[in-house]
Amino acid sequence: MKFYDRLIDESAPGALQAVPATTNVPSAEYPRVYADGRVTFRVHLPSAKSVHLEGGQGLCSSPVPMSRDGEGNWSVTLPPTVMGFHYYWFTADGTQINDPGSHTFFGYGKQTSGIEIPDPQLISSDLVTAPVLPVYAPHPGPQGQIHEHWYQSQLTGNWRRCFVYTPPEYQDAANAGTRYPVLYLQHGAGEDETGWVRQGGVNFIMDNVILGNSSSFFFAAGSQPKAKPMIVVMDNGYATYATPRPQMRDPSETYLRSGSEAFGAVVTQELIPFVDRNYRTINDREHRAMAGLSMGGSQTMAIALTHLDFFSHIGTFSGAQFLAPRSQAAGAAAAPAFDPQTAYGSAFADPEAFNSRVRLLWMGAGTAELALSESLRQNAEKLRSANIKLVEYHSPGTAHEWQTWRLCLSKFAPKLFQS
Amino acid sequence: MKFYDRLIDESAPGALQAVPATTNVPSAEYPRVYADGRVTFRVHLPSAKSVHLEGGQGLCSSPVPMSRDGEGNWSVTLPPTVMGFHYYWFTADGTQINDPGSHTFFGYGKQTSGIEIPDPQLISSDLVTAPVLPVYAPHPGPQGQIHEHWYQSQLTGNWRRCFVYTPPEYQDAANAGTRYPVLYLQHGAGEDETGWVRQGGVNFIMDNVILGNSSSFFFAAGSQPKAKPMIVVMDNGYATYATPRPQMRDPSETYLRSGSEAFGAVVTQELIPFVDRNYRTINDREHRAMAGLSMGGSQTMAIALTHLDFFSHIGTFSGAQFLAPRSQAAGAAAAPAFDPQTAYGSAFADPEAFNSRVRLLWMGAGTAELALSESLRQNAEKLRSANIKLVEYHSPGTAHEWQTWRLCLSKFAPKLFQS
Repeated sequence: MKFYDRLIDESAPGALQAVPATTNVPSAEYPRVYADGRVTFRVHLPSAKSVHLEGGQGLCSSPVPMSRDGEGNWSVTLPPTVMGFHYYWFTADGTQINDPGSHTFFGYGKQTSGIEIPDPQLISSDLVTAPVLPVYAPHPGPQGQIHEHWYQSQLTGNWRRCFVYTPPEYQDAANAGTRYPVLYLQHGAGEDETGWVRQGGVNFIMDNVILGNSSSFFFAAGSQPKAKPMIVVMDNGYATYATPRPQMRDPSETYLRSGSEAFGAVVTQELIPFVDRNYRTINDREHRAMAGLSMGGSQTMAIALTHLDFFSHIGTFSGAQFLAPRSQAAGAAAAPAFDPQTAYGSAFADPEAFNSRVRLLWMGAGTAELALSESLRQNAEKLRSANIKLVEYHSPGTAHEWQTWRLCLSKFAPKLFQS
Repeated sequence: MKFYDRLIDESAPGALQAVPATTNVPSAEYPRVYADGRVTFRVHLPSAKSVHLEGGQGLCSSPVPMSRDGEGNWSVTLPPTVMGFHYYWFTADGTQINDPGSHTFFGYGKQTSGIEIPDPQLISSDLVTAPVLPVYAPHPGPQGQIHEHWYQSQLTGNWRRCFVYTPPEYQDAANAGTRYPVLYLQHGAGEDETGWVRQGGVNFIMDNVILGNSSSFFFAAGSQPKAKPMIVVMDNGYATYATPRPQMRDPSETYLRSGSEAFGAVVTQELIPFVDRNYRTINDREHRAMAGLSMGGSQTMAIALTHLDFFSHIGTFSGAQFLAPRSQAAGAAAAPAFDPQTAYGSAFADPEAFNSRVRLLWMGAGTAELALSESLRQNAEKLRSANIKLVEYHSPGTAHEWQTWRLCLSKFAPKLFQS
């Protein structure tokens, strides 16, 4: 994650300065980002007849044809796009392939190329004189740590891996007796426990919001409160029981809880005890939060709202459970309308009890993910009408992409454990 | 890294049991390993005209043609091969592509598919009754941790990442006052600081040799001594100065030290102080070791032997510096013959001083990497003739591949910090 230490001088007269993406493997000069925000992708596929660039929301909404030069290089330049992390791949004669010039990131159920698009204004800037960096960028202050753990799950019958972030001050000898609250933070569908670390830059975000680093644009204006020092745990959201379990008691909740039942058991019966054994946690519901993006937001609602003895702070970033009912493909079960009276085991039915028990219900989405943004508005309104307190956040101009989730985390974390 | 929890039942009569490789992405059924040790690779490339399997030493020494079925799937079955980790890729009509069914690992300067080939005897075994696992396998005992750090290097002018292993007992409150020796452990050419964690399974190896886990085949016979609990640090071996430095004083050493000069400065001036600030280390040369594989072994010799005020234990696994002079491509500088009297700033010239100062000089290679194995024999003999004490190890049947380096580490680590 080096920034701007390798400028490319193009020979064309008047060419703009450019940098290889920081997500490139060493020495790969493509993809590259120009000082006006344009991005050029290039791949050497001499025997291909047709090559397209494809990618996630925020980068390109449909396949973009690439052009071949005389040496078998296919390239395309995109107009300025949303900064942040984007998945992408090439489709050559119908086959998806990754970019050999890029690192890969686990998304779409497999290893996928990814590009970190920087703020184009910084490309032509001197970093020393223009040190206003994104909240997810490395910073020169004290650093938190990412720890990797493998644990044997009795519930799923296999080895599982989780990552744990500890804040900068955690290792200080002076804090050896200090205990910390914990946020359980989940990835989206097709991703895994590496997502928040590799794609998200969770450690840099948390460091910056905990330290209130003035080098970050969030703090340059001085208006953002600091987050409490906390531990963040990131597990794999996919879990199936080693031995089948009886049906859920309430079949009407199958839609909302499918994919969450076994994972919820892992979180509450195995993961939380594991973390509490291995870290200096404050082991009670008042100091435990859960949040997630997309599928992870859906799981967060399903798990946290039905386990309020475990969690007091809840966040969902582009959480899929807020999709309003819509026309379904033949054979798929229709999603029930979101009804605050009955949803999640009637967790919202008694607003006074809910508001005193749940210290924070926080819901975010990007304004460019239109359906989710709109359903967030509708459902937040339904909840407010039912006298449920919540915080609603719409990230400007970002889609169903990591930039939305990075911004959500940076806004959500400072509101945790403040009461 | 699950083992054998997803058996594949093939419909063919008399078909052997098989398992998807543990390095596959979730739900990918290829590559798969059969109970007789054969491995089948398969990839869907309907528009390709010719597809080959290629891979590192130990898997396939030359491209293996794959066959197309009527649905555009190309496949090939390899005869039983060396167990352990192997890089591989497909070449379709001249273009290298990764296997979408596999996780990727940083090798050859880019993200590359990899397969973990298990002991085929275990595929048809009941794990409960046959729990003799490789030394690099997850184990149910107390687990060490991998920590990830980013640090800003003044010498190179950019952000660098390192991984740190701490032993199982490090986190115990009872050991809060205990300090530990440190092994600096390096990857090979084209790899990076993730190599020992992802390809190597360094945390499982170290746990198993520190705990003497009886579930591991190394300890089933009861003959292997336990390793001392230690910290292991893995940094990126590639480093260039932000500002050019004057030439090295002794140009005759350029060959041996090229690629090590800036990295050696990073290790001794930045990395070691960083680790000593952040971990409970024993901060002296008697409790500091360095080792590495291939290029990392070469770097270890170049750095440790010229910084004996920092290191007392030295290991090289398939270290490239032991190549005897050989015919060079036109224009390439010839490697000087290995001369114990003059090599590495004459570190070996006074054997008595060397043997008292260097507590362990350990050199390993695989018997199937013929040139390196033979040059190890020759150079070890030269050193012994010069009255230098050393340990020589030849891993049976393994090539220039991670299985050699895993076995080297498991043999080397128990000899560290014992005097």
